[in-house]
Amino acid sequence: MLERQDPVLYAEDRYGVALRPTQIENYLRNGFLVVENLFNDEEVKLLNDELNRLRTEHKSGKAESTIREPDSDIVRSIFRVHKQSGLFHRLACDTRLVDVARYLLDDEVYLHQTRLNYKPAYFGKEFYWHSDFETWHAEDGMPRMRALSVSISLTDNTEHNGPLMLIPGSHQSFVSCAGETPDNHFRQSLRRQEYGVPDPASLRRLVESGGIQSVRGSAGSAVFFDCNTMHGSNSNITPLPRTNAFLVYNSVSNQLVTPFAAKKARPGFLAERKECSPIVAVSGRLRASHVT
Amino acid sequence: MLERQDPVLYAEDRYGVALRPTQIENYLRNGFLVVENLFNDEEVKLLNDELNRLRTEHKSGKAESTIREPDSDIVRSIFRVHKQSGLFHRLACDTRLVDVARYLLDDEVYLHQTRLNYKPAYFGKEFYWHSDFETWHAEDGMPRMRALSVSISLTDNTEHNGPLMLIPGSHQSFVSCAGETPDNHFRQSLRRQEYGVPDPASLRRLVESGGIQSVRGSAGSAVFFDCNTMHGSNSNITPLPRTNAFLVYNSVSNQLVTPFAAKKARPGFLAERKECSPIVAVSGRLRASHVT
Repeated sequence: MLERQDPVLYAEDRYGVALRPTQIENYLRNGFLVVENLFNDEEVKLLNDELNRLRTEHKSGKAESTIREPDSDIVRSIFRVHKQSGLFHRLACDTRLVDVARYLLDDEVYLHQTRLNYKPAYFGKEFYWHSDFETWHAEDGMPRMRALSVSISLTDNTEHNGPLMLIPGSHQSFVSCAGETPDNHFRQSLRRQEYGVPDPASLRRLVESGGIQSVRGSAGSAVFFDCNTMHGSNSNITPLPRTNAFLVYNSVSNQLVTPFAAKKARPGFLAERKECSPIVAVSGRLRASHVT
Repeated sequence: MLERQDPVLYAEDRYGVALRPTQIENYLRNGFLVVENLFNDEEVKLLNDELNRLRTEHKSGKAESTIREPDSDIVRSIFRVHKQSGLFHRLACDTRLVDVARYLLDDEVYLHQTRLNYKPAYFGKEFYWHSDFETWHAEDGMPRMRALSVSISLTDNTEHNGPLMLIPGSHQSFVSCAGETPDNHFRQSLRRQEYGVPDPASLRRLVESGGIQSVRGSAGSAVFFDCNTMHGSNSNITPLPRTNAFLVYNSVSNQLVTPFAAKKARPGFLAERKECSPIVAVSGRLRASHVT
């Protein structure tokens, strides 16, 4: 377990302050920040309708960017969703997200990865603890901790339906994972993670120090979290599925190089290497006309 | 899904009222009742020490009454624990439990089943929704809904470590499960339930009507629940294991007959058929001298 070398807040106010002082303090201390009701009910409905359309479209497909549950064919994640839907492209450019990312990373940003996560009702499986940066550094060649994720809830998150859990303060330590990355590891790891998971002793230390916080709240809420914040979720046996849109913004100064601990870079739907020009942010509400 | 035929509260005060009026109302309405701090810290420590002794003893054993995790050899449950430990026998006779059971069932009671449940840290698996009575009726030949369980927390239960979840009001409906009971079903079902689970549509109806309540609280708390209350739990990826002692009291007027939907009765460690004489209740705190 190594101490973090990079800043958490890169901001020098070059892009204007997109957050209130207490929000900035929270993000610095915890490594994440929850914003309730960032999107309104109409926007959530548009996003859900689009998500259902994509899930139906991918039901029987063989696209590598569609990931299924470990024990069934239920669609668990659809990657590169901003390339498959005008609405999700518009979402990714929304000032409510981009302004926060630019401010915290103090740089222009591009999309490193986007996806829709669908944790089914009744039989949704857990997703084990991980720091995204560990994978992005080792397997994708992301140089520094200068990226962040935003997860937008498209369903209500309760304590019961396997909500996202984060370990406050975990972003300050880098837990390197034992073992070599197997070839084409991603094919397995996106369904069920078995290699490259943090060891129990390190997890215990992180939780003893920071506790665990789960993200609960109504659909339309968002959590921004640092690329090195440890997170995971338990299973979901309730009748309430849990769905979210997940977008990763990386600083344009932090583009990918050769992976630091894998023979071969992962495919572009997991780690963008080509389209890395700065996002042009768009303001205003999501509208039906964005669905194309 | 059938309407319940049996009373929830059998009490006519023949055994004295062991509960306050609001507790009785809760039990009637919800089908369960949480009592915080029923056992104190010293008692919890005694029980945990004894549990750890038993888990070590059973680590490499082949006893059929020791159940392991579906994907590993970690001990998940130890059955008939009151026969393996003086302390757990004493616990089963404790007035704090027996008086409540006798009052609610309005009868003398005996132990239908006892066990220790251990949900490991990090890799504890979910346990799917079920009504105990469905199994006890179909596979064990329990005639009526005149039994209750008590689960005593031996570790703190948080929202994060896969706590027991119950569906308030579900005790009023009997959800019969589709499909025949496979021979020797219990060998598999105690590790991972695949047959005899309630259908999603019925679960949805129950949750829409009653919601979900998870049992959180410090070690030493207890939840009494009717034999037909639907319950289950999600997985546990946290560093905090979740352990409880589980005791089932059945009315002596409700002893087992031939199973209603299985060819062969299950073994005695799951469903007592021989020692069905009334429990003699014992008052006072659990003490180290009870460990024999």
